[in-house]
Amino acid sequence: MSELRKDVITREWVILASELAKRPYDFKTEKPVVKKLAHDPKCVFCEGNEDKTPPEVLSYRSHNSKPNGKGWQLRVINNKFAALSLEGDLQRRDITIYDAMQGIGAHEVVIESNDHSKNIALYDHKTVENVIWAYCDRYIALKKDTRLKYISVFRNHGKIAGASLAHPHSQIVATPIIPQKVWQKVSGVTQYSEYREKCVYCDIIENELKEKSRLVIENGKFVSLTPFASRSPFETWILPKGHSSCFAYMNRFEVNDFAEILRETMLKMYTCLNDPPYNYTIVTAPCDTDKLDNFHWHIEIVPRLTTPAGFEIGTSIYINVTPPEIAAKFLRDTKV
Amino acid sequence: MSELRKDVITREWVILASELAKRPYDFKTEKPVVKKLAHDPKCVFCEGNEDKTPPEVLSYRSHNSKPNGKGWQLRVINNKFAALSLEGDLQRRDITIYDAMQGIGAHEVVIESNDHSKNIALYDHKTVENVIWAYCDRYIALKKDTRLKYISVFRNHGKIAGASLAHPHSQIVATPIIPQKVWQKVSGVTQYSEYREKCVYCDIIENELKEKSRLVIENGKFVSLTPFASRSPFETWILPKGHSSCFAYMNRFEVNDFAEILRETMLKMYTCLNDPPYNYTIVTAPCDTDKLDNFHWHIEIVPRLTTPAGFEIGTSIYINVTPPEIAAKFLRDTKV
Repeated sequence: MSELRKDVITREWVILASELAKRPYDFKTEKPVVKKLAHDPKCVFCEGNEDKTPPEVLSYRSHNSKPNGKGWQLRVINNKFAALSLEGDLQRRDITIYDAMQGIGAHEVVIESNDHSKNIALYDHKTVENVIWAYCDRYIALKKDTRLKYISVFRNHGKIAGASLAHPHSQIVATPIIPQKVWQKVSGVTQYSEYREKCVYCDIIENELKEKSRLVIENGKFVSLTPFASRSPFETWILPKGHSSCFAYMNRFEVNDFAEILRETMLKMYTCLNDPPYNYTIVTAPCDTDKLDNFHWHIEIVPRLTTPAGFEIGTSIYINVTPPEIAAKFLRDTKV
Repeated sequence: MSELRKDVITREWVILASELAKRPYDFKTEKPVVKKLAHDPKCVFCEGNEDKTPPEVLSYRSHNSKPNGKGWQLRVINNKFAALSLEGDLQRRDITIYDAMQGIGAHEVVIESNDHSKNIALYDHKTVENVIWAYCDRYIALKKDTRLKYISVFRNHGKIAGASLAHPHSQIVATPIIPQKVWQKVSGVTQYSEYREKCVYCDIIENELKEKSRLVIENGKFVSLTPFASRSPFETWILPKGHSSCFAYMNRFEVNDFAEILRETMLKMYTCLNDPPYNYTIVTAPCDTDKLDNFHWHIEIVPRLTTPAGFEIGTSIYINVTPPEIAAKFLRDTKV
């Protein structure tokens, strides 16, 4: 018998089809072992090809190196194929019964490392910290433009998950509107807190630390867990234990713990599921209210192991073949 | 310069990245010409293998043929790997801070034709009509179970779009809850009608028939168009011109016109995009209110030509590389 579970924030239901239940080895595909080079001279994101990308807006590099040259550990550039751009006016306008506006915004690429062959699961601690600091630095810089209402930080890994270039990178997109999906979560948090006078994510953390069946890892300041109403197999969230609305204001102790738990979670997933394609997204408060302290930021990691089809597209109800309790146990038991 | 466009019903924005604009031939992949057999003895949905599926809940068959034997044109069966089942009690229950209930519902498969090699684009008119009548008949039968709140009818075509079996089929899933995605549309329609005292879909149809740039085909009772805020390349909607909340109460003249425009639209897509993978979903009123006449049913066809990634998953803002005006022109100009 399958079970319907409700996401306590978004009110979306999922169907846990436990009779179809799948385990990690059901998702493991036999991949040819392609030895990736640490440096690929043809890759535009590799060292030495800085002139083949738009100029950097941020870089972490050695003291005696020059911008847009060699000698960097991390670079942030504008996306050459940007979906949005900061130039121009917003000009919101009506087209008969419809609304439209110019594509004002930012679309940046975080080139996370000069090593072509690595990814979050395989970096050393310092590199993961660098990536997180870059997310924070660019968030704070972009937020100064008051036209921008939301800043989305995400990572696509693997072709199936939409990554078009192999060199490890994340993306940052800033939009002049608050996305509906974010509104839905902000509203969910607000409604819960009006009714119960506390934060729903704080309640989830308290509950999961007590209950333990969906817990993956815990460290000083963070917790990694599979959500009760997981929409897809091995969906995993990492949340700060302390209530905090925006990720970008982390101090260095928090960045340290976040880097540690992010790397370990990704390495467990990498080991358990054989380097699966995935997307992760930082869910944070909209720019205008990111200091209001009503939201609880976190990161959502979604391995792309199954294909959403007509039912999911039409209803947004997901059929999940791996209950989160099973996924969490496999991740917990994976030694890294 | 890209453009942001807002869906007037759901309030979701899309980014039309016109600088990255793609045309049909950019999506055409060179497919090996696999000659599909009209009958595959190994296919469980082919004639002669009726004993390999669960028993039929509906069939259109010749007078002298017997249920669950040969001689049918169309069969509807329970899904062997059903996500939901009608047996059991709903038993909504709390699990600490969460909600869950038993997976009560229905999950049926419409085996659309005894020809293994065809699909909606290639059927004759009569077969398309049969498929539509089967959708209506099963909707009306399932609706009698008052535990069911929404009945979703959809079709997955091609592996990328989640179809696991090649034999042409659609699916029907009935859920004991109204999906959030449907709620979002029902709310959008309600808000628009409270404000403007008319139906938003009726306004869209009137506007598009006048404006013409996003029009694909029109016949007596239906219109096929690419929506102003298309989320993905070649997204296409077919809507009845007359306001009607639920598809299942069509009369035979309406079924005739719907079959005609559905087949022609799918054939244009098949020809223009070289048999693309796609999902289509019928969007209709929830069961309880399907006679209230506040909604406007329609079908949404989404070819799977691009991969939604972290940005789309995290924000539900889609980046679309083919403006609907370009898609509509290509579909209009495709001779079938």
